[in-house]
Amino acid sequence: MNIRDYLSARKREVEKALDSFMLPEQGVFTDHIAAMRYSLFVGGKRIRPILCLAAAEAVTDDAATRDALLPVACAIECIHTYSLIHDDLPAMDNDDLRRGKPTNHKKYGEAAAILAGDGLLTYAFELLSRPASALPDGSRLRIIQLIARAAGPEGMVGGQFLDISNENRDYPFELLKTIHKSKTGALIACSVLSGAIGAGADAVQEEKLREYGILIGLAFQIVDDLLDATATTTQLGKTAGSDRARGKATYPAFFGIEATKEKARETVEAAKTALSSFSNRAQPLIDLADYICMRTH
Amino acid sequence: MNIRDYLSARKREVEKALDSFMLPEQGVFTDHIAAMRYSLFVGGKRIRPILCLAAAEAVTDDAATRDALLPVACAIECIHTYSLIHDDLPAMDNDDLRRGKPTNHKKYGEAAAILAGDGLLTYAFELLSRPASALPDGSRLRIIQLIARAAGPEGMVGGQFLDISNENRDYPFELLKTIHKSKTGALIACSVLSGAIGAGADAVQEEKLREYGILIGLAFQIVDDLLDATATTTQLGKTAGSDRARGKATYPAFFGIEATKEKARETVEAAKTALSSFSNRAQPLIDLADYICMRTH
Repeated sequence: MNIRDYLSARKREVEKALDSFMLPEQGVFTDHIAAMRYSLFVGGKRIRPILCLAAAEAVTDDAATRDALLPVACAIECIHTYSLIHDDLPAMDNDDLRRGKPTNHKKYGEAAAILAGDGLLTYAFELLSRPASALPDGSRLRIIQLIARAAGPEGMVGGQFLDISNENRDYPFELLKTIHKSKTGALIACSVLSGAIGAGADAVQEEKLREYGILIGLAFQIVDDLLDATATTTQLGKTAGSDRARGKATYPAFFGIEATKEKARETVEAAKTALSSFSNRAQPLIDLADYICMRTH
Repeated sequence: MNIRDYLSARKREVEKALDSFMLPEQGVFTDHIAAMRYSLFVGGKRIRPILCLAAAEAVTDDAATRDALLPVACAIECIHTYSLIHDDLPAMDNDDLRRGKPTNHKKYGEAAAILAGDGLLTYAFELLSRPASALPDGSRLRIIQLIARAAGPEGMVGGQFLDISNENRDYPFELLKTIHKSKTGALIACSVLSGAIGAGADAVQEEKLREYGILIGLAFQIVDDLLDATATTTQLGKTAGSDRARGKATYPAFFGIEATKEKARETVEAAKTALSSFSNRAQPLIDLADYICMRTH
């Protein structure tokens, strides 16, 4: 299966699972649920949940184990979606568009958007701790711990704090790396690692997939920086050039476009190399690495 | 031990644990951590974590089991604190004062306050899933599930959404009950139940403590409504009369002050009755029920 077919099949699978796991729009909380569902289903490539499932595939061909990871994959997507809703708020990036549609607060108002984010974040942990899960208790607790760390004060939230509080400031490349690693890299890396742990990876497999996850997270952010600098608003579905407009440090700002492209390619190659000891069941992860890099061309 | 001494001893214990479990103000995320710590340590009676520990005491006299519940008790306090930070935001209740001090966004700005809330909520789940926990994996997963449900879209966050979106509207008493139960009652009830589960309660004990928790949560909210209607801003440490000013429905608005006081007393008595089959180790919970009601006098 080529990577585009693979991605669209997995995307459909993830979206079907998201729809079944997310609360239905009914009952007394229906308006709140509608606001959460709006951002959850407004679009998105579902890269994080797909990475989680693809990492599980690389470890095992047992379909039941992979299915047991669907709630984990969906929880990660809920967390990613909440982070976009909060990042877009007037007090943060103040964005009107996301994926070509009005941002959550533009559609539902600021209070409802803050709460939609809070609800999605909390619901993610409800999904992760569901009684019906087929994953062993120990693996689930490890996955919850990993995800909470990746999304928390020393991960995604901390990274967003650093990003916001250093706008329009000159800062060293070391800080840019920290921001990227915590704000974007951590959740991507933990998507891969969660899939590995849930699929019962041994210590060596886990270490290799951890390495792949960290590198792919870095590549993803470098490419995002590049796209913000080079693509149009229509291509992005969000405001292009907004990093520069906000005085945000980026890879292109430090190294220029060409050297940044080279850096993205190198990082993707390193991610692929980390998987050299895996069977051909790791092919989707390898293709995903290339796909992430391709977005720059 | 009388209840005031009990409460101040437990409060010290909880605050010491909170300080040891919360990230230290150092490293690259120090400003973000400072904003979380500010609201976590600006004051508060620590009723929820104390309820958790007192429920465990009612079930077991094993000190190690009770100590193993400290991270759970602290996680609940982190979630309560995050909810206050977000409730106070300009887009929500727009409060300047909380516990007699500037609210988080007044001190750190709106973006930092949103992220301090997000960070505390996420960190709570990190605490709950810590590898070093002495609680059995199954109990921990049940507790995580309970807390996520109580704090989530059909619990605290959903309740806050209903509260905000029904300001200045006439609505039936049924909806007021739903708002109170979800916004405030759910987290209080789950504080008690988490302590019970963590301490290894049997099915009957669990059911009785569940009943006590729900009733105490209701009593707490009725008393809060009363205090908002009758106390001064100095007594509350937050703006008094703000419910009425915002056109929020409350128990006193439906029933008047005296009938509401009677309702609070009845609810507290029912909560105490639920514990009649417990040994005298449930005395702190019984005294806590009375203490909650006393706040109105």
